[in-house]
Amino acid sequence: MKLYGSLASPYVARVVMFAKIKGIDLPLHEAPGGSIKSPEFLKLNPMGKMPTLEANGQGLGESTIICGYLEDTQTAKSGLPKDPLDRARSHLVARITDLYIAQQVGPLFRNMNPAKRDAAAVEAAGKELAKAFGYAEQVMGPGPFCVGSAPTLGDCALAPTTAMVRKILAAGQFGIADPTQGPRLKTWWKAVEGNADCGSVLASHAEAFDAFMKQMAARR
Amino acid sequence: MKLYGSLASPYVARVVMFAKIKGIDLPLHEAPGGSIKSPEFLKLNPMGKMPTLEANGQGLGESTIICGYLEDTQTAKSGLPKDPLDRARSHLVARITDLYIAQQVGPLFRNMNPAKRDAAAVEAAGKELAKAFGYAEQVMGPGPFCVGSAPTLGDCALAPTTAMVRKILAAGQFGIADPTQGPRLKTWWKAVEGNADCGSVLASHAEAFDAFMKQMAARR
Repeated sequence: MKLYGSLASPYVARVVMFAKIKGIDLPLHEAPGGSIKSPEFLKLNPMGKMPTLEANGQGLGESTIICGYLEDTQTAKSGLPKDPLDRARSHLVARITDLYIAQQVGPLFRNMNPAKRDAAAVEAAGKELAKAFGYAEQVMGPGPFCVGSAPTLGDCALAPTTAMVRKILAAGQFGIADPTQGPRLKTWWKAVEGNADCGSVLASHAEAFDAFMKQMAARR
Repeated sequence: MKLYGSLASPYVARVVMFAKIKGIDLPLHEAPGGSIKSPEFLKLNPMGKMPTLEANGQGLGESTIICGYLEDTQTAKSGLPKDPLDRARSHLVARITDLYIAQQVGPLFRNMNPAKRDAAAVEAAGKELAKAFGYAEQVMGPGPFCVGSAPTLGDCALAPTTAMVRKILAAGQFGIADPTQGPRLKTWWKAVEGNADCGSVLASHAEAFDAFMKQMAARR
């Protein structure tokens, strides 16, 4: 089994964190062919995205699908709650992350430069972002993690994306409130940052993402 | 357990088809409060979308999450392949449907009227659609279903969305090729249409979607 990708991506960090809470050692490798758009890589994942997992010679794309495969095959320690409704809620937090929260990152990222900023697009993204984090809060249980007292898939999805959103909001100075200031997400954020497995991956992801942001800023 | 939604939605049809291949009787109900935006409904699903499942007094949104819950709790007959990599590929086809295929429906739907058509937007959607169905083909096995000789989650996701795309392409006369004309998807489409469970849900979905399209056309 080989995992391809860079830890600057919150989707890669998701899989790394999920492997970590399951107790699996899953180091990151460079993309075959040197790029995620190389013919070798596209054979494994036609979408040309990271993370991609190679298992038994076959390729699997999409972080949630990879986590599902790890859960099915690496059964020593589960990365999902036992109760079916709780499992579904953990999955649902991951899906809200992908469908509703991550969708707003693009408009913000494209408007980092205050001099060339589309204020209406930023305002709209801020409103949708608040709504989306609200969805997550409603679906999450009393916690402190997304579902219960230990991290599961939902935390591994929401945490790196939230970390990225916080960094983008701070760097862009958009005047959009930090989503982890609300009472439920404040408790949650403290729990994931304080957890040995989640916290260590968050720290490495933050370092890689900061380096990526510096590169981007140098290009502008 | 109560499933809320209208069969005109391909996401609702997905859950109904998945229940059917698992041998579960899961009738559709009207949304509590009379609408998917009612306070009663939003308590069950903050996203205000259908389908929504009510189970043990809790609400679950997102068709794939609902199918996962059904798979976890209704264990008589599985709706997923046994082999972990095959399971992952079935899930991946569902995800390609949601992330890459369904994304192109909006631009086409907004440009149904030839007199007010944004030709560039239609052309771009056609290109992305061809790419997205290509992703699905690469991920699918030799078949005839998405993975193997019986329908699984991937088929339940891809089939109603493909049916909707075909209807929109035919009605709009965009000059975009029917995605089920390629060799792999032609074989697949024949298999799902010819399967008793999938075919019957596809027929009911088509009827409901046609009625919805007539309503929309009357508004223009």
